[in-house]
Amino acid sequence: PAAADALAAAARSAGATIGILVELDVGMRRTGVQTPGAALALAGHVAAQPGLRLDGVMFFPGHVWEKPDEQGAPLRAVDALLGETLALWRKGGLEAPIVSGGSTPTAFQSHLVTCQTEIRPGTYVYNDMNCVTGGYGVTLDDCAARVVCTVVSDAVPGQVVVDAGTKTLTSDRCHPAPDSGHGHVVGLPGARVARLSEEHGMVDVTRCDRTPRVGERLRIVPNHICPCVNLQDRVYWNEAGDVRPLPVDARGKVV
Amino acid sequence: PAAADALAAAARSAGATIGILVELDVGMRRTGVQTPGAALALAGHVAAQPGLRLDGVMFFPGHVWEKPDEQGAPLRAVDALLGETLALWRKGGLEAPIVSGGSTPTAFQSHLVTCQTEIRPGTYVYNDMNCVTGGYGVTLDDCAARVVCTVVSDAVPGQVVVDAGTKTLTSDRCHPAPDSGHGHVVGLPGARVARLSEEHGMVDVTRCDRTPRVGERLRIVPNHICPCVNLQDRVYWNEAGDVRPLPVDARGKVV
Repeated sequence: PAAADALAAAARSAGATIGILVELDVGMRRTGVQTPGAALALAGHVAAQPGLRLDGVMFFPGHVWEKPDEQGAPLRAVDALLGETLALWRKGGLEAPIVSGGSTPTAFQSHLVTCQTEIRPGTYVYNDMNCVTGGYGVTLDDCAARVVCTVVSDAVPGQVVVDAGTKTLTSDRCHPAPDSGHGHVVGLPGARVARLSEEHGMVDVTRCDRTPRVGERLRIVPNHICPCVNLQDRVYWNEAGDVRPLPVDARGKVV
Repeated sequence: PAAADALAAAARSAGATIGILVELDVGMRRTGVQTPGAALALAGHVAAQPGLRLDGVMFFPGHVWEKPDEQGAPLRAVDALLGETLALWRKGGLEAPIVSGGSTPTAFQSHLVTCQTEIRPGTYVYNDMNCVTGGYGVTLDDCAARVVCTVVSDAVPGQVVVDAGTKTLTSDRCHPAPDSGHGHVVGLPGARVARLSEEHGMVDVTRCDRTPRVGERLRIVPNHICPCVNLQDRVYWNEAGDVRPLPVDARGKVV
């Protein structure tokens, strides 16, 4: 309610109206009101504020990491919670034209949350190794982004070092594999990005049939593409061979 | 040798001379020639190349994470390896006016590597929780950088959420504590940055004597300041109350 009041005051002073979605926590335990009753109370508060317009409900089923064929139970629980919330609202004379949810792991099971009107899968834009190893209906061929890096050292036997470390790939591990390395080297079977320091990636090539040369370019599909793109000033967009740089507009916009 | 040849050719075509340090791997198993003999061979190759000037040796004892009073043995091993290398060079008529090494964990024990002429401790500029929990002669008061973030939710009992996640703090864990959380909240005893998603930090406040309000600013000393600074477009420098923004020049310069 405090945030709603602040938004309402700002809207009124600007002579504007701000559309509001009430966030309901469906299991992520992060943000959002904790019960359908609390959602109703907040929705009523919003609807009564000049300057605000109650548009509906948002939620994020980011706690659902099961494989698609095991998502039925958790997603039906989400659906039930939303259904209960919307029933309360209707009983209270409130409407929710927007019910916004969805995540990348649950994207292909979105139909199980029957009342949602939009999904917001983020990783889905590029996909990444988390999507592949999670088995969310995604293969390596569906991963659109690669980190192109250069072999800078082959000093240690059985290893090459590339100029991509945590400042490029992030230190995010891959779910659900416990020892998944730090990305998948495309076209070099057996290679494993075993260890990262900030500017360096140590690639174990003991199980490869060749050792890449110093100067050779390697292409890595990262574990988690979201913070990885955030580390770049630009990405290179390849559309049918037409390659052009695209600035990452939101990069560095963390404060 | 291939890299030296490429540098030499570039130097000659520019009519310049490039000073070269031969990197010796002293235990990090990342880059650098693997033996004193290999260092001698590379040094001889460099010294013979027009356009290059042999300036000495570089090394990085980044594998030494012991507490300072346990660093004697590993650093004496580093010293012995360097001593053997320099003796070989002298015997071969080569000199090493620069012997460049050092790291933040070993900074206060630099005297144990008797032949080094400079140290390159990086984290040392700011210090961070790794330095504090590692016991490298650093206290919280010696940590110069704080991530200033805002409480954006207190929806979940016993928890507040701040607007600093892995895109601000990185997902780096803290060495050597196995369950160290993601940074230290200054001035809020008992608080624990328990979990991060990209834009959110979940702070467990069940052991605090108060729950911070929504809108309140918290100050976090990160686990690993190096990639954390790399995520910012600018930092704010506070010198005796005179606060001014400083651009992070190298940010995004990963390719």
